[in-house]
Amino acid sequence: MQSQPDAIVPEPDSAAASGDLIPNVLAERYATAGMAAIWSPRGKIRLERQLWLAVLKAQRDLGLAVGDEVIAAYERVLEDIDPASIQARERVTRHDVKARIEEFCHLAGHEHIHKGMTSRDLTENVEQLQVWRALEVVRRKSVATLARLIERVEADRDLPLTGRTHNVAAQLTTLGKRWAMFGDELLTAHRRLVQLIDGYRVRGLKGAVGTQMDALQLFDGDAAKVEQLEQRVLHHLGAPAGHGWTAVGQVYPRSHDFAVVSALCELASGPSNLAKTLRLMAGHELAGEGFAKGQVGSSAMPHKMNSRSCERINGFHAILKGHVTMASALAGDQWNEGDVSCSVVRRVVLPDAFLAIDGLLETGLVVLEQMEVFAGMIRREVDHYLPFLVTTRILMAAVGAGVGRELAHEVIKQQAVAAIRDWREGRSGDNDLLARLAGDERLGLSEPELGRLLEQGRGETGAAGRQIDSWIGQAREVIDADPAAGYRPGSIL
Amino acid sequence: MQSQPDAIVPEPDSAAASGDLIPNVLAERYATAGMAAIWSPRGKIRLERQLWLAVLKAQRDLGLAVGDEVIAAYERVLEDIDPASIQARERVTRHDVKARIEEFCHLAGHEHIHKGMTSRDLTENVEQLQVWRALEVVRRKSVATLARLIERVEADRDLPLTGRTHNVAAQLTTLGKRWAMFGDELLTAHRRLVQLIDGYRVRGLKGAVGTQMDALQLFDGDAAKVEQLEQRVLHHLGAPAGHGWTAVGQVYPRSHDFAVVSALCELASGPSNLAKTLRLMAGHELAGEGFAKGQVGSSAMPHKMNSRSCERINGFHAILKGHVTMASALAGDQWNEGDVSCSVVRRVVLPDAFLAIDGLLETGLVVLEQMEVFAGMIRREVDHYLPFLVTTRILMAAVGAGVGRELAHEVIKQQAVAAIRDWREGRSGDNDLLARLAGDERLGLSEPELGRLLEQGRGETGAAGRQIDSWIGQAREVIDADPAAGYRPGSIL
Amino acid sequence: MQSQPDAIVPEPDSAAASGDLIPNVLAERYATAGMAAIWSPRGKIRLERQLWLAVLKAQRDLGLAVGDEVIAAYERVLEDIDPASIQARERVTRHDVKARIEEFCHLAGHEHIHKGMTSRDLTENVEQLQVWRALEVVRRKSVATLARLIERVEADRDLPLTGRTHNVAAQLTTLGKRWAMFGDELLTAHRRLVQLIDGYRVRGLKGAVGTQMDALQLFDGDAAKVEQLEQRVLHHLGAPAGHGWTAVGQVYPRSHDFAVVSALCELASGPSNLAKTLRLMAGHELAGEGFAKGQVGSSAMPHKMNSRSCERINGFHAILKGHVTMASALAGDQWNEGDVSCSVVRRVVLPDAFLAIDGLLETGLVVLEQMEVFAGMIRREVDHYLPFLVTTRILMAAVGAGVGRELAHEVIKQQAVAAIRDWREGRSGDNDLLARLAGDERLGLSEPELGRLLEQGRGETGAAGRQIDSWIGQAREVIDADPAAGYRPGSIL
Amino acid sequence: MQSQPDAIVPEPDSAAASGDLIPNVLAERYATAGMAAIWSPRGKIRLERQLWLAVLKAQRDLGLAVGDEVIAAYERVLEDIDPASIQARERVTRHDVKARIEEFCHLAGHEHIHKGMTSRDLTENVEQLQVWRALEVVRRKSVATLARLIERVEADRDLPLTGRTHNVAAQLTTLGKRWAMFGDELLTAHRRLVQLIDGYRVRGLKGAVGTQMDALQLFDGDAAKVEQLEQRVLHHLGAPAGHGWTAVGQVYPRSHDFAVVSALCELASGPSNLAKTLRLMAGHELAGEGFAKGQVGSSAMPHKMNSRSCERINGFHAILKGHVTMASALAGDQWNEGDVSCSVVRRVVLPDAFLAIDGLLETGLVVLEQMEVFAGMIRREVDHYLPFLVTTRILMAAVGAGVGRELAHEVIKQQAVAAIRDWREGRSGDNDLLARLAGDERLGLSEPELGRLLEQGRGETGAAGRQIDSWIGQAREVIDADPAAGYRPGSIL
Repeated sequence: MQSQPDAIVPEPDSAAASGDLIPNVLAERYATAGMAAIWSPRGKIRLERQLWLAVLKAQRDLGLAVGDEVIAAYERVLEDIDPASIQARERVTRHDVKARIEEFCHLAGHEHIHKGMTSRDLTENVEQLQVWRALEVVRRKSVATLARLIERVEADRDLPLTGRTHNVAAQLTTLGKRWAMFGDELLTAHRRLVQLIDGYRVRGLKGAVGTQMDALQLFDGDAAKVEQLEQRVLHHLGAPAGHGWTAVGQVYPRSHDFAVVSALCELASGPSNLAKTLRLMAGHELAGEGFAKGQVGSSAMPHKMNSRSCERINGFHAILKGHVTMASALAGDQWNEGDVSCSVVRRVVLPDAFLAIDGLLETGLVVLEQMEVFAGMIRREVDHYLPFLVTTRILMAAVGAGVGRELAHEVIKQQAVAAIRDWREGRSGDNDLLARLAGDERLGLSEPELGRLLEQGRGETGAAGRQIDSWIGQAREVIDADPAAGYRPGSIL
Repeated sequence: MQSQPDAIVPEPDSAAASGDLIPNVLAERYATAGMAAIWSPRGKIRLERQLWLAVLKAQRDLGLAVGDEVIAAYERVLEDIDPASIQARERVTRHDVKARIEEFCHLAGHEHIHKGMTSRDLTENVEQLQVWRALEVVRRKSVATLARLIERVEADRDLPLTGRTHNVAAQLTTLGKRWAMFGDELLTAHRRLVQLIDGYRVRGLKGAVGTQMDALQLFDGDAAKVEQLEQRVLHHLGAPAGHGWTAVGQVYPRSHDFAVVSALCELASGPSNLAKTLRLMAGHELAGEGFAKGQVGSSAMPHKMNSRSCERINGFHAILKGHVTMASALAGDQWNEGDVSCSVVRRVVLPDAFLAIDGLLETGLVVLEQMEVFAGMIRREVDHYLPFLVTTRILMAAVGAGVGRELAHEVIKQQAVAAIRDWREGRSGDNDLLARLAGDERLGLSEPELGRLLEQGRGETGAAGRQIDSWIGQAREVIDADPAAGYRPGSIL
Repeated sequence: MQSQPDAIVPEPDSAAASGDLIPNVLAERYATAGMAAIWSPRGKIRLERQLWLAVLKAQRDLGLAVGDEVIAAYERVLEDIDPASIQARERVTRHDVKARIEEFCHLAGHEHIHKGMTSRDLTENVEQLQVWRALEVVRRKSVATLARLIERVEADRDLPLTGRTHNVAAQLTTLGKRWAMFGDELLTAHRRLVQLIDGYRVRGLKGAVGTQMDALQLFDGDAAKVEQLEQRVLHHLGAPAGHGWTAVGQVYPRSHDFAVVSALCELASGPSNLAKTLRLMAGHELAGEGFAKGQVGSSAMPHKMNSRSCERINGFHAILKGHVTMASALAGDQWNEGDVSCSVVRRVVLPDAFLAIDGLLETGLVVLEQMEVFAGMIRREVDHYLPFLVTTRILMAAVGAGVGRELAHEVIKQQAVAAIRDWREGRSGDNDLLARLAGDERLGLSEPELGRLLEQGRGETGAAGRQIDSWIGQAREVIDADPAAGYRPGSIL
Repeated sequence: MQSQPDAIVPEPDSAAASGDLIPNVLAERYATAGMAAIWSPRGKIRLERQLWLAVLKAQRDLGLAVGDEVIAAYERVLEDIDPASIQARERVTRHDVKARIEEFCHLAGHEHIHKGMTSRDLTENVEQLQVWRALEVVRRKSVATLARLIERVEADRDLPLTGRTHNVAAQLTTLGKRWAMFGDELLTAHRRLVQLIDGYRVRGLKGAVGTQMDALQLFDGDAAKVEQLEQRVLHHLGAPAGHGWTAVGQVYPRSHDFAVVSALCELASGPSNLAKTLRLMAGHELAGEGFAKGQVGSSAMPHKMNSRSCERINGFHAILKGHVTMASALAGDQWNEGDVSCSVVRRVVLPDAFLAIDGLLETGLVVLEQMEVFAGMIRREVDHYLPFLVTTRILMAAVGAGVGRELAHEVIKQQAVAAIRDWREGRSGDNDLLARLAGDERLGLSEPELGRLLEQGRGETGAAGRQIDSWIGQAREVIDADPAAGYRPGSIL
């Protein structure tokens, strides 16, 4: 393309200086307030100050000389959060934690926090607290999604549907079974998410290289006090005994972040499969994701009801897969006791992965509430394909009557291919497969017999109903005692 | 580059025809026989035939007319495996399962297998059996790796080491603690692997779209018999009750494959971190991965002992991360009841991910057995950096003596920076930090006091020892009852 | 799942020892002989020996003492390639290049090759030669794909088709335009592939750390001779002047590999989009990928003609995306002058990425030759949706007649939504949109006017034809002088 | 971890409502104002309005009835940008473009924009304009980076350095050569970036499914006018003739986005390699990235000068690799004429990839300006390793004197291994390799001869100087005529 105006000459000033703020698009457009609050800069500063105070109080209780008025002074300014002032400090020190220490101390008029701690004693624990709270939000929305899915599965339990493999008609199933299929995937991923949460491990106060030397020096080598201090902090973080890492360096192992992001990507898969299949069904007018009140479709083609929310769900999943790549890049890349080459990556991937899964689940919940099933179209489709769908039944009947499996297969295939070609090329007005099969002596089945098989086939959906009931039972075990099952999504863009 | 010889004009003939076979490089060069056997084409054909026979016997037991001589005929030719003959059939039918049915039936002289089944009833279950067996091999090698790590941690428990953050000297730790750090990561990933295995779900016999209609027709709609048939098959696969998928389509959800591959990538992270850090240590001649008997180093620089095995471990991890991307591409991409767009991907990613982790763990075990620790060099390094490493202690002492934390920090930083610059520029012959600090009145510490702090600091490795003992205790719980802990690796390339 | 049989206890022996070889599945099942020959182990050994000989002859010509009988002795055994013997040597030396030097020298009875060279002087150049030849194969198949696409675009140039956005009917286009859309994508990627080939840079003979010190020592510091030696080698590799890297270390930058793999992934996108859309069209029976002679469909549903080749194309693309991740992991991860942490990754990703794109293009060529268009179905679909498809025309007409754009949009949307709902719920037998619009006074258009708009709309496909002709013109420039345009694929599995 | 407080119960309200804004962290902390301005929401709205006006004026010039006062009315409110008001509209319509049309029309008091256009006619072109401008910024910073690298290469052209492979000492090189190595990689990637920019193709005005039907209807089927309209728009976008896509659907092919993001990842590789190697060198105190004025190091270890900027560069690269995965997910996933499943992904990946590369290059420029070389340490290292580094020279001398290459290799290896072991284990005080070799009769070289070889080897850096000069010459061709070479970075966090 052509050479560009001089205005494009790069300006070295920082973005923040321009006043033309770029918001995090996932937070601004898609995530909920609940999730965004966990990851907001103000929120993180609050969590950090709370952690410093928890440490300070524990240090006092364990015998360090910290006046109550000092603690009170810090507590008084806890909510006095001014990110701009902190960033101004950071522009001088080039050290984000240092800047936040200075700001908090300046406000409180004391220099008592962060004793016996290193930067990572602060940041690792606060970030893990964010992850843990965000995991809990995800878990609850996953429960709610299961609850909504159960409702849909129940509603469509017995509606016969043309099951498709390779995207073409294959055998009858039910619409409820189709939803249950994605529900079973979600249920499995949900269980794994719960296992992840249950096994989540927090770094704790470990010092610069993980040996707790700084804290030990602070307490004159009293290991018991250091142990108690760390337990107090873990308790503050909500981690029960046994959920701290035992032997870490400056950082906790980044494969733990990878496990978290992978679990989100796995959890997204059921809803994403449902969304993709709903997009396919919309193409056949069998179902649609519905419209919100006031929603406008394509400006040029007003009749169109686009699967924009379902497309967005698939888009969120693509984003999460990129986050998996980012998180995987950090795993296995620790040098000695650690460094901050992971820092900028985690600043992006941890919030964004949770904001993306939050947007995905929220959008999925809206789709589950608004979606429409076009039963008339589903019936038309079954009527059209039924002769093909019962060919397995016809094959079995022929085999039962003594015809070799391979021969029967060959006859049915020949006739089916011929019937479908004539129809596709306009040589037949409708599906005439049954008549063709009746006329083929090799199969040995009469037209009345074939008609009977067709009628038996109509509505024959195998074990679909039993499978549905079994799945609902399993899913209910997860949701029944959980108030999150009642969660309803807000409005989405 | 230049135009190329005519020999490069593409030839459309298939590779197999050329006789110039390309082996799977991971299997040929790196994986063990035990893992390769699970994924060999012959092995897979055997597993398929065993599954067909298990189904056939179950069908007979449940009342279908299958003569014992039929079963005997199939059993007789079970091991009569000729991949070339099968591939010749596939080149006609363009259907791999069909080709294998034809071959097995032709050999047995009967047409009784695969009744009431579709292709996926065969392939999904056999592939899951391969995955499950391979997971078990990985689990056992992970146990062995933990066992070897415990030995190393114990051997180096008390050797003081210059801990590094940002790749520069930070504080003392111990070499045992460094290994334990990677051990704690592996232990956590190991527990998650075990959870994955425990929660692994098998598809079972579900028919073309998941409704078991084919099997139901075979048994005249007798749901109980179909249920028993599937239980028999699950038992054959080694899956206890409750480990079958409830509501699937033609395929089981591909997020289950993603979970498997992710778990392998997570498990690789501890060994990969150890390998990367060992490469760094080799650069400082603190440790090396050792040489096997007869091994040749760089041809031009014979004194070099390259960390080629450790580099390879990191390479395996990079491969696994690519496999994670491949597996993630399949998750959330199911159309309706499924298709085979995943087929070629799974043919690559399932074997290759397991062959890669097998090579990684095997190489890691060799490294753990052969590695060398150069204690002399480690001591030299500690001596050199000790004055810097005790600055935290000096800072605390100054703070304890009433100097403000920020001021003390500033003084130490100034003097440390000056000392290190003079040394780096050749202006000082050795590390003269202590003398400088003694001469700075702001700090208020005398040379003898500083000397005492230095001596206290030598060998002061904080909680490293306690953390090590605690980690060993946890790791022993995993390995103690497990015979796999005794596994020793073979020789590697 | 349950505890497993003892047979699963890992066996440490190498896979190769088991005799149960696992072939490279991409080479065995999908790639062509032409591509596989480039990457076969035997082929690589031959290329290496040819390079050694080229170096040896150049060294002789530049004055080193190398007897002609020595060269003759090496030439005599050039084709005496025994991978098993070489691997046996490697199992002792743990050094692959060393093993291959020993084998070649043992066969020739001399020790004269590899003088003044290091391992990477051999392997980097040979691997780049493989890459370059493979790129040329890909380029030619890309030309052939463009040629076949032109034929399809011409054949379907004027067939009106219901264009779909969001997978639902939007406006008319033509089938030829749809193919051209994917053709334009391929053409753009093709041009970028050619640029990549034209700018491909070869490492040359640079020695252990890139300074050519070994070669300089061999020629007593005669820089001119070393320069000539390298030019001779570059000429042997087919690289014209200016295509060598200038300043490399032990290895050439791995971002060059990333560029190659990315280009393959980009090139795959047009065919992959075509395949995905063909899978969607098959679901509406508008087109199909066709059957090869003798091909067998689904065993249970013989009438089905599955888009298995198109699904496979999408699968290949997923594999390539994983290869992009693998290659990206190597970029920016060079330590100092280099190491071999990339080795195992490149052993996998370089062959496999080319084998995958080869399979993808070959499969795509088969689809382009075999695919079927069901014109009768395409006509039926247009008839059904036409009233909706002309709503833009109706909107413009209303706006032209003075109705506000937003109002007209609102009216049409209302009526369209109502018409489609009634139809979907079975309340109307057919699409009655035109009658509804005629009855809505706000729009001010009579039924005859609307009918006229409908007839004008039938076959109105905008600039589709002109765009097609323009694209064909551009694509012909690429293919016209190129004999590769005539390439026809072999048979595929 | 434990059950969590009720405050974690998800709140369905949107994040925007909470007032607790989350900024885009890459824009806020790392990118420059110049790059951020391209991607700011306000900036994008401005670009859209400018495009609408360009279309409107062209339509007027081509004969459509558009009053000049209408155009003036729109122009008057062009800068009246209120994202909140637009978002409020979007919350009703659920259609972002619709909301922006309404806002602009409401402000202007007319309904004349967007005629004959669909949403994508607006958004695709504006987004491509953003991409193109951002590519130009990247190109200029890449030029500046090359300019700074030339300066460094020249400064360190002749400083002998211990070249390392496998992270251990291998042969001498020069520090300038090491930088040039990464410069050559950047230069190659830079050329490919320029090719990408030169071949970048813009979608233009193609209508809902790509056939330009809407525009044709607006001009009563006058194809010439539609062609002129599109040319006017391409000119407005800065795209010369031949840079428009020929045959697209609703969207341009997403492989074009993949090409862009891949090119950024490739471009990042040279700087990322330099950063990684500088981190390694810092570990040996050979060089450091320097400190900015006022910068604070580790709070607990004030003497530490951490490679935080270099670590951050590597972090940016990891992010970009994740973006490559995201972009690759969109390539080959177009359904028919297109949809918006790519929308949310592109909202993330396009800005973020450019913000990341901007931060990476800016940080790289700062490192190139601030970095320090510790020549004293580099000399010490050379002195220590020299006996090992000249072993190739010794090998050649021995071979020259008639000793077999393999034997000489074996002798040197034996003695080198022994010397290094004794030193590592503290049995020798210094490197005594030369004395050992002199004492080994098999080699036939006396101590004086060996000493001479050592002195010859000191400063022998092969072709490093010539390679450097050659590279500088090539790099100068790129930067010489370009004012961007003078660009200096601003301050970074």
